[in-house]
Amino acid sequence: MEHSKADSFRPTNIAEGTGQRIYALAERLYPICRSITGNGVRQTLDRLAEHIDVERHEIPSGTQVFDWTIPKEWNIHSATIKDARGHVIVDLAQSNLHVLNYSVPIKARLPLAELKRHIHTLPEQPNLIPYRTSYYAENWGFCMEHNRLAAMADGDYLVEIDSDLRDGHLTYGEFFIPGATEREVLLSAHICHPSLANDNCSGLAVLTVLAAELLKRQNRFSYRFLFAPGTIGALAWLAGHEDGLGRVDHGLTVSCVGDGGGPTYKRSRRGNAFIDRAMAEVFRHKTGATVKDFVPYGYDERQFCSPGFDLPVGCFQRTQWGAFPEYHTSADNMDFIRPEHLETSLATLLEAIAIIEGDWTPLNLFPKGEPQLGRRGLYAALGGNKDAAAGTMAMLWVLNLADGHTSLLAMAERSGVLFGELAASAALLRQHGLLTDANAL
Amino acid sequence: MEHSKADSFRPTNIAEGTGQRIYALAERLYPICRSITGNGVRQTLDRLAEHIDVERHEIPSGTQVFDWTIPKEWNIHSATIKDARGHVIVDLAQSNLHVLNYSVPIKARLPLAELKRHIHTLPEQPNLIPYRTSYYAENWGFCMEHNRLAAMADGDYLVEIDSDLRDGHLTYGEFFIPGATEREVLLSAHICHPSLANDNCSGLAVLTVLAAELLKRQNRFSYRFLFAPGTIGALAWLAGHEDGLGRVDHGLTVSCVGDGGGPTYKRSRRGNAFIDRAMAEVFRHKTGATVKDFVPYGYDERQFCSPGFDLPVGCFQRTQWGAFPEYHTSADNMDFIRPEHLETSLATLLEAIAIIEGDWTPLNLFPKGEPQLGRRGLYAALGGNKDAAAGTMAMLWVLNLADGHTSLLAMAERSGVLFGELAASAALLRQHGLLTDANAL
Amino acid sequence: MEHSKADSFRPTNIAEGTGQRIYALAERLYPICRSITGNGVRQTLDRLAEHIDVERHEIPSGTQVFDWTIPKEWNIHSATIKDARGHVIVDLAQSNLHVLNYSVPIKARLPLAELKRHIHTLPEQPNLIPYRTSYYAENWGFCMEHNRLAAMADGDYLVEIDSDLRDGHLTYGEFFIPGATEREVLLSAHICHPSLANDNCSGLAVLTVLAAELLKRQNRFSYRFLFAPGTIGALAWLAGHEDGLGRVDHGLTVSCVGDGGGPTYKRSRRGNAFIDRAMAEVFRHKTGATVKDFVPYGYDERQFCSPGFDLPVGCFQRTQWGAFPEYHTSADNMDFIRPEHLETSLATLLEAIAIIEGDWTPLNLFPKGEPQLGRRGLYAALGGNKDAAAGTMAMLWVLNLADGHTSLLAMAERSGVLFGELAASAALLRQHGLLTDANAL
Repeated sequence: MEHSKADSFRPTNIAEGTGQRIYALAERLYPICRSITGNGVRQTLDRLAEHIDVERHEIPSGTQVFDWTIPKEWNIHSATIKDARGHVIVDLAQSNLHVLNYSVPIKARLPLAELKRHIHTLPEQPNLIPYRTSYYAENWGFCMEHNRLAAMADGDYLVEIDSDLRDGHLTYGEFFIPGATEREVLLSAHICHPSLANDNCSGLAVLTVLAAELLKRQNRFSYRFLFAPGTIGALAWLAGHEDGLGRVDHGLTVSCVGDGGGPTYKRSRRGNAFIDRAMAEVFRHKTGATVKDFVPYGYDERQFCSPGFDLPVGCFQRTQWGAFPEYHTSADNMDFIRPEHLETSLATLLEAIAIIEGDWTPLNLFPKGEPQLGRRGLYAALGGNKDAAAGTMAMLWVLNLADGHTSLLAMAERSGVLFGELAASAALLRQHGLLTDANAL
Repeated sequence: MEHSKADSFRPTNIAEGTGQRIYALAERLYPICRSITGNGVRQTLDRLAEHIDVERHEIPSGTQVFDWTIPKEWNIHSATIKDARGHVIVDLAQSNLHVLNYSVPIKARLPLAELKRHIHTLPEQPNLIPYRTSYYAENWGFCMEHNRLAAMADGDYLVEIDSDLRDGHLTYGEFFIPGATEREVLLSAHICHPSLANDNCSGLAVLTVLAAELLKRQNRFSYRFLFAPGTIGALAWLAGHEDGLGRVDHGLTVSCVGDGGGPTYKRSRRGNAFIDRAMAEVFRHKTGATVKDFVPYGYDERQFCSPGFDLPVGCFQRTQWGAFPEYHTSADNMDFIRPEHLETSLATLLEAIAIIEGDWTPLNLFPKGEPQLGRRGLYAALGGNKDAAAGTMAMLWVLNLADGHTSLLAMAERSGVLFGELAASAALLRQHGLLTDANAL
Repeated sequence: MEHSKADSFRPTNIAEGTGQRIYALAERLYPICRSITGNGVRQTLDRLAEHIDVERHEIPSGTQVFDWTIPKEWNIHSATIKDARGHVIVDLAQSNLHVLNYSVPIKARLPLAELKRHIHTLPEQPNLIPYRTSYYAENWGFCMEHNRLAAMADGDYLVEIDSDLRDGHLTYGEFFIPGATEREVLLSAHICHPSLANDNCSGLAVLTVLAAELLKRQNRFSYRFLFAPGTIGALAWLAGHEDGLGRVDHGLTVSCVGDGGGPTYKRSRRGNAFIDRAMAEVFRHKTGATVKDFVPYGYDERQFCSPGFDLPVGCFQRTQWGAFPEYHTSADNMDFIRPEHLETSLATLLEAIAIIEGDWTPLNLFPKGEPQLGRRGLYAALGGNKDAAAGTMAMLWVLNLADGHTSLLAMAERSGVLFGELAASAALLRQHGLLTDANAL
C-alpha cells in the first residue's frame, strides 16, 4: 500500500495529438448557446458525455440554495432587429452574443432612440460584440458592434426575441473517479457562457480530457469533476453536497486555459493550502508563470472559498480573466485559443496532480551521517569531479531532509530541486532500503 | 451600542480655514521663552486654554520621579553680551535662542578668548543661531551666529544673564475627553522648546485643534492629551499615572508636523501594535509616506516605550527630527511651517483616529457562498460588464473575510482596499442584515 | 561568574605577522601527499603538533562506522608513466596530484589508447592537473595536463604505481581546550587533500593558529578542534563521540579560507542556530559577505548536519568550493592563497567567537523611563547638539531592550548596532549598576 504512493508519481507525458483533441472538443462546444439554465447546458453535457460518462443533475426552478433561489429556465429560439423595411440588422443566428443573455420575450416596433436603451456595445472596441447577461433582473436587450450601431439610421425598428422563461430546471454535470482513498480532488469549470472560446469552452474541454486521462490511471485520490453554471450552479452543487465537503483536500477552478499568456494561479482563500503550495512549486520552474493572492472575485472559487466553506480551491488560468482584450467579447473565439496552449494547460494540471498523488514523507533509515551511496552504486564513484555534485544532489537532499516531518513537496520548496527529481530519488532510495514512509510506521 | 462602532467611522472632512487656525495658534506660542520648567510653560498652557480647557499640574522641585529628580525652576529675564564700550552684541530680547537654556545668572567682564568657551555656534550654518540647553549641569552660555562671532574684535566683553534657578515647580498640561469606554488614546507633544516653530509649536497647535475637534464628537475611546516638558515632564506624568497606564490602548507623540516633508511614522517598541498597523494603513495610500522601525531616541516615546512600560505609542512627524537643516536652529521659525502642512497633519491624525474608532470585527450571517447582493440592490444588475467588479470589490472582501476573526483593519491590510471603503461597505451590509458584530455575540 | 561573560568579550586584535605565520604553516603542509588514510595524514598532524598539542587517533581498517567501513590504509611511494624509450612523461615526484588518489599498485606496458582510459585531464583548463580520487572503488590512474596528453605520441607506455593498500588505520587529530563550562564549540577542517593550498592547507593552518590563540585565553566555552579526513574521518569521530554530541552548542567547518573572495557562510541545516545568527551578524557589517542557506553538499557539515545528528554546524569559507577556477586543480597552490586573506579569515572567526563568548541577556534595573545617564556621566551633558545622539545610541538600545528576554545578539539584530558596541555599552551600564544578568537571577 505505502509503495503505491511513491509509484504513483508518474511523468506527465501526454499522447501526441492531445492538444488537437482538446481543441476539437472545444470547437464542438463553441456554437452552443449556453446560459445558466436551459438546453444549451444539456447539449454541452451531451458532447462531454461522448468522452466521459458525465452524470446530469437537474434542480427545479424555485429550489432554495442558501441565500439564492434556482431561477426560471431560459431557452432562446431566435432574436432579431429589423429595420422598418424588414431588413435584418442583428440576428442571433449570426452570433449567440447578439442577445442579452436571459432576455425575456419581446416583439415591438421602436424608434432608434428608445431601442438604443436596450443595446449594448463596446465604444472602445467598436468592431466587437460584447457579452452581457441579466440573469436575476427581468430585462431584454441586444449586444452588437458599436460601429454598426453608429451606422443605423434614425427611424423605427422591429425587435423580436423569441425566448422562454418559465419554471424548469438548472442543469449541471458531475463526473467522479474513485481512487484508492475517499479523499477528493475537486476540479470545476463553469458551463454557462455562450460562444466564448477561452472563457468557457477551453476549461470544459481541458477538464474533460483530463478526466479521461485520469480514468486510465490508478489514483490515490478520488477526482470529482464539476461542470456547473457559474455561481448558481456551484451553489446548487454545494447545497447538495455539504456532507461531503470535508473530503475535499484539494481543488481548482479552471478557465481561460487556451490562450498563449500566463499561466496564472490564484491562491485559495487559505493562501497556504497544499494546492497553493503544489501550484507554486509547478509554477516555480515555468517562465512567465505568476502566482497571485486570493481575491473574492473571479470564478466559482468565490463560492468554494466563501467563509462558510473555505475549501482549499485555487484558480488556474493562462491569462487572467479581464486581462486580455478579447475577454467577454466576440473576439474570444476559436481563433483565440490554440491546441498547443490547451495541451500545455493540461500538462500543467497533470504536474500539479503528480505532486498531489506523489507526495509522501520519507524517513531516513540511516540518519547518522550519510549512508554510503557509492557502495550501492548510487554515487559517482570517482571523487573530485566538479560535475559529480549535480547528479546526486536530489538524493542528498532527500536523505538530509528525511527526518519524518518533511514531505517531498516541503523538500522541493526548501531545496529548489524539482519535485519530480526528488520523487524519483526517493523512490530509488526506498528501493535500496534507505528510506521508509514515515506515516506508515 | 454595537452599532455605534460602525457609525462612528466618519470621513475626516476638516472645516475650511483649519490650517490657518492651527498656524495662528502656533504663531502665538512661538515668541514664548519656554524651558522644561518656568513661566514659559505656564504662558504656553494659558494660550492653549483659550481653545481647550487644559488642566495644569505643578510638581515641586525635588520630587523624585523614577530615577530622576524634578529640577529647580528656571526663569530668565534678560541676557546680553556687550562690548567694552557698552554696545549690545547679543540680546535675549532679539531671540530666545541666544541664551543657553537653563543658564545660571552671571555678570562678568571677560576677554573674548574666555567668553568663547561659553559661546555656541554652527560653523557650517554660520548665519543661524543654534539651540542649546544645559538642564542637568549648572552652566551658562550664549548661542549666536558663527559669522557674527567671527567678526567680534579681541578685547573684553560684558556678559550679564539675569535668571532665577531656584526651588519651584515643573508644570505640565493635560486634557481629557471621556469616551464611551475607559480605554484611552494618549496624544502627547513636548512643551519645552523656546521659539522653535516646527519642533514644538506645530505639535502643540495641531494637538490642541485636534482636541477641540474630538470634543465635538461622540467617541468610543477616551482621549488624553499631554503637553509636558520633554523627558522629565513625561516621566513626571508617568510617575503620577502608573495605575492608569493599563488603559492606554493607543498612543502617539506628535512633533515637527508643520513642514512640507514626510510624513514619517516611527513604530512603537512593540512594532505591531494596533497604532502601528493603523498608521501603516493610513500611510499605505500616501505618496512619500515612510514607516520606520522603533529606535530608542526621538521624543517622549522613549519614555512611554521604555521596557518597564512598553506602551503602544508611536511617533508621528512630517520630516523626522534632525533630518531637516533648520532643526534646532533659528531657521525653525514661523516661515518654515505652513498652514496647509499643519492641516494635512491634522487630517492624517484624524484618519488614524477614524481607524481606531471605526474598527470592528464583522461576522457574515450568510457565510455559505456569497449572499445574493443583486436581490438587495447591492450588486451591478447587468453581468458581464468589465467595470462592474471594482464597485463591489469592497463588499465582496468584507463578506469573504467576515469570519468573525478578522477586523476591518486586518481586512484592509489583506485586501489593499482603503479602510474607509471597507468600513462603509460593512456598514451597508450590516444595515441589510448580512453582517453582525462578532464581538457582540 | 556572571561578570566573566561580559568581560570575556574582547576585541579581536591580532598580533602583527599572524597572517605570515599562518601562511608559513600552510606552506609546510602543502608538499605532503595526503589521502583519507596513510602517512600523509600523520605527517600533517606532526606539523600541526609543532603549534598545538594535537591528539592523534588511529581507527583500524574494517571498523564499522555507521553505514561505512574504515577502508584499507593507502600509502604511495612512486608513480610514473614512461614512454617506450624510458623517458619519464609523468612523475608523482613532480606533483602529488599526478596519481589518482587511492590507486592500487600496477606495473604494465600499455598502448596509448588503453592508457588513456586511466588518464584524467581538464580539457577546458588544458595546462592544469586535475585532482581525482577513487577511495571506495579499487582502481588506478593518472591525472595530467590535457595539453601534455595531447602531445603524447601513439605507441606503448610503461606505467608503474608503487603503492600499498592494506589493512592499517585511519588517522585523525583532535585538540580540546577546556573552558569555564562543558558546552562546546566544534571547529573542523578536513585533512585529506594532497597539495591543494586553499582547499585544505588554509583551513588546517587557520584553525591551528586559532587554537593556539584561544589557548591563551580564559573561555566560557570549551573548544574542540577536529582535523579528520573528509566524510569517513568525520563519521569515525562522530561514531566515537555520540555521547558527547549533546554538548556541542556551536560549530563550523572551515576550508578555502586563503583566497581573496567572499567571505561565504553556509548556514547549518537548522538555519537559525545561534552560530547562523552570529555569523550573519559578523557578515552584516562586511562588504562582499554572503550568507547562504544550507545545502547537503560541501564539507563535513554534511555529516554533522545529517538528520540523525542535526548539529548546529555551519561552513565558513572565502570563495565557496567549486566557485573558483583553481578548485581541485594544480592551480590551487601556494600562490593562490595570501597571508592577508588567511589573517582576515582568522579575524572573522574571532569575531564570531567574540559573539559566542560575549553574548548575555541584560535586565534593566531601572526599566521605567530612561535612567538619568547624565547624572552618572554617561550622557552628553549639553542637550540640543545634533551629534550627541550617535554616541549614546548603543547605550539607549541596550537599556530599551534589556527586558530580560533579549540577548545582546538579538539586540544587535534588531538595532543594526555592532555587537561589540552593544557589548561594551552593556558592560559599562552594568558597572554603573543599571543592568544585571537576567539568567543569573
